[in-house]
Amino acid sequence: MKRGNISQNVIRRLPRYMRHLEGLDAEGVERVSSAELGKAMGLTPSQIRQDFSCFGEFGQQGYGYSVKILLSELRGILGINKSFSVILIGAGNLGHALIRNFGFGRYSFRLLAAFDVDPALIGSEIAGVKIFSIDYLPEFIRETHVDIAVLAVPGLSAKSIANIVTKNGVKAIWNFTNIELGMDNEGVLVEDISFADSLLFLSYCLSESTAEEQE
Amino acid sequence: MKRGNISQNVIRRLPRYMRHLEGLDAEGVERVSSAELGKAMGLTPSQIRQDFSCFGEFGQQGYGYSVKILLSELRGILGINKSFSVILIGAGNLGHALIRNFGFGRYSFRLLAAFDVDPALIGSEIAGVKIFSIDYLPEFIRETHVDIAVLAVPGLSAKSIANIVTKNGVKAIWNFTNIELGMDNEGVLVEDISFADSLLFLSYCLSESTAEEQE
Repeated sequence: MKRGNISQNVIRRLPRYMRHLEGLDAEGVERVSSAELGKAMGLTPSQIRQDFSCFGEFGQQGYGYSVKILLSELRGILGINKSFSVILIGAGNLGHALIRNFGFGRYSFRLLAAFDVDPALIGSEIAGVKIFSIDYLPEFIRETHVDIAVLAVPGLSAKSIANIVTKNGVKAIWNFTNIELGMDNEGVLVEDISFADSLLFLSYCLSESTAEEQE
Repeated sequence: MKRGNISQNVIRRLPRYMRHLEGLDAEGVERVSSAELGKAMGLTPSQIRQDFSCFGEFGQQGYGYSVKILLSELRGILGINKSFSVILIGAGNLGHALIRNFGFGRYSFRLLAAFDVDPALIGSEIAGVKIFSIDYLPEFIRETHVDIAVLAVPGLSAKSIANIVTKNGVKAIWNFTNIELGMDNEGVLVEDISFADSLLFLSYCLSESTAEEQE
């Protein structure tokens, strides 16, 4: 199913909907209205109806949504049923945290392997995930179907590693470095998760709220 | 200066503008047009002019923007001149990565201390930042002016730690846990940086692009 031009903002809200619905499902709730969902998430009911209408008709006026059906639709839309394969490049502190604590499996991502330059790490395993030498990266990607490469390397290596994975056929990069890759790798999907941008947004809000208090 | 209702999307683009302008400034570029900036960032010139117009008039038709002036304005808007103080709670792998690699000082944030429950960590230092026992957290916050608390603790502790820091006077939480705090702490600013939401957005895009290829 092709969905045309849905705004990024709508799509970025979908994982939040999914989490809330998972919570309801775990509590045994079978149906939820857009009003209830809105209240729990700080959104208006009409916004929720509008968001869901981008993807088809999930609810019935006056009856609310079936939690299970909506969850299953959202999972499908977010590609969770595809079990995308993932490799991680950079097994430093952040890489360790991602392997140990992120829980790729929770949303059916399959973390196949990790890569690093540190001889002390190469050949070892973290939580069952083997660490290979970065020299083996091109060959690994060519021989194994890899959907997503996670970049947890220092910023200085970001572009060269992005080039290697792109050239060898990876379709998407989840970029944790402080280097924006968005513009450089056409045809490859890049999601920059910028810690700095997130903290600076908070800093803006804090700065504004302090200014208001002083008025 | 109060700026009224500026859309989140605009504000979230400001750190990106700042980074690009820092790059230009480092290269010695003195003026930049909205067309040049747009090309480098994948935005239209009119979008850039519209974004900047929310905060006042920085440019002159036909002359472009002064890189240094725009940078200084953006830094001010983002609160970087305020040197907000920060504490980090949870000095595990992610906490280590944040202390060692994130570079709070780069945007004038002052990382004062870290807190953990692990006796092996308490009393030690990471890159000059001292790790205290979490038991000392309430007292530390009451005695020291803390603007921002970074939560890098397991999800299960997220809400209780958020309550402690909120109750003792922290104004903002930068939340790395997988628990959404947005709705629970009124009066406190919360920025959730959700790894899962970011990966699921990428998963959606990948899923859609695969569907298109198969059509």
